[in-house]
Amino acid sequence: MSQSEMPTARTCVVREPHRGVYDRETAYRILDEGFVCHVGFVADGQPYVIPTSYGRSGDNLYMHGSVASRLLRHMKDGAPICVTVTLLDGLVLARAVFNHSMNYRSVVVLGKATLVEDPPEKLEALRVLAEHIIPGRWADARQPNEREMKQTAVLKLPIEEFSAKIRTGPPIDDEEDYSFPTWAGVVPLRLTMGEPIADARLVAGQKVPEYARHYTRAR
Amino acid sequence: MSQSEMPTARTCVVREPHRGVYDRETAYRILDEGFVCHVGFVADGQPYVIPTSYGRSGDNLYMHGSVASRLLRHMKDGAPICVTVTLLDGLVLARAVFNHSMNYRSVVVLGKATLVEDPPEKLEALRVLAEHIIPGRWADARQPNEREMKQTAVLKLPIEEFSAKIRTGPPIDDEEDYSFPTWAGVVPLRLTMGEPIADARLVAGQKVPEYARHYTRAR
Repeated sequence: MSQSEMPTARTCVVREPHRGVYDRETAYRILDEGFVCHVGFVADGQPYVIPTSYGRSGDNLYMHGSVASRLLRHMKDGAPICVTVTLLDGLVLARAVFNHSMNYRSVVVLGKATLVEDPPEKLEALRVLAEHIIPGRWADARQPNEREMKQTAVLKLPIEEFSAKIRTGPPIDDEEDYSFPTWAGVVPLRLTMGEPIADARLVAGQKVPEYARHYTRAR
Repeated sequence: MSQSEMPTARTCVVREPHRGVYDRETAYRILDEGFVCHVGFVADGQPYVIPTSYGRSGDNLYMHGSVASRLLRHMKDGAPICVTVTLLDGLVLARAVFNHSMNYRSVVVLGKATLVEDPPEKLEALRVLAEHIIPGRWADARQPNEREMKQTAVLKLPIEEFSAKIRTGPPIDDEEDYSFPTWAGVVPLRLTMGEPIADARLVAGQKVPEYARHYTRAR
């Protein structure tokens, strides 16, 4: 069962409202398939949009970065931010230029991020981040030491005010355009992985792990 | 020859400054390979980040949308915006959790967008947008009529204040970690196309055009 929530005036999808989705289940499926978000914050009246990785655990998004980064400096004081995740599914070629579109799934989360300072919670957030991006990797890698933990800032954004927007399916043309003599349809798009490239200084005998050999974002 | 420009305090890459790139040639190559940007704008102190398609012509980015959209409503009055384009190239698996990274190329453009109102310039901007996303399509599709032109808002953002950030290559671990017994390397990622899906109401005899059959973003 999907748990639908009332959008706020800020998250209500204005344009093409039939594409707006407000249930957590759908939004979380999109958030779990993606792993790079675009974070918006404001500094001196100027908006900035920065790509960064993220992880989800329950009703929270986690992001991390160097304590020295502009992004982290501006987010950690509880300023309002916007986290947007977009998955591209296809180019939609209609008969009319005007009706061209894209198939996509996106989620927008508005809120204020807080710095995760409690060491066990911070370590767990880093595990969530690693496992979100490539499940299985955390256990195989050298764990963070104290110095690294100090250099890393972790932010938590509660998923409270959010909306999703989805377009799927074929082009939708005006009725009189269906006789227009051009090809129309969808060119599907997908993020795919290539053959893993082993580091030149690998310890002898290390094989490509399954999670890297068959990496996929399908969830 | 690449034309390098001085970054401003706002576009100077703070974190990992060796990854900052400020020449137009590099930035334009990234902008031309991408076709979806994330636009940041501020409304009532809240930043919003919205995915949208774009096109580049010379030193300008063009975006379009319904005159009814929130994005367009907030951008057309010359408010400061940020347009970010990110291309994902790979997951970088290091020995240490801390040194995990991604290979990517991104461009950030700061500035103020203006509404394109002159009809010939507006039509040309729509052509630039269509051809940026799928070269060859414009000529094959039914051209915009007067009603559609009125419903569409086109925005122009001059590419003046910008920076690019690029990470390529293998993981970089601390020297003492190279003996850590785990696989390390890069999982390449790429946006790929699937088999075009013809619309169910296609006029008889329409074949998939070359630009849709062999769609690629490589430029």
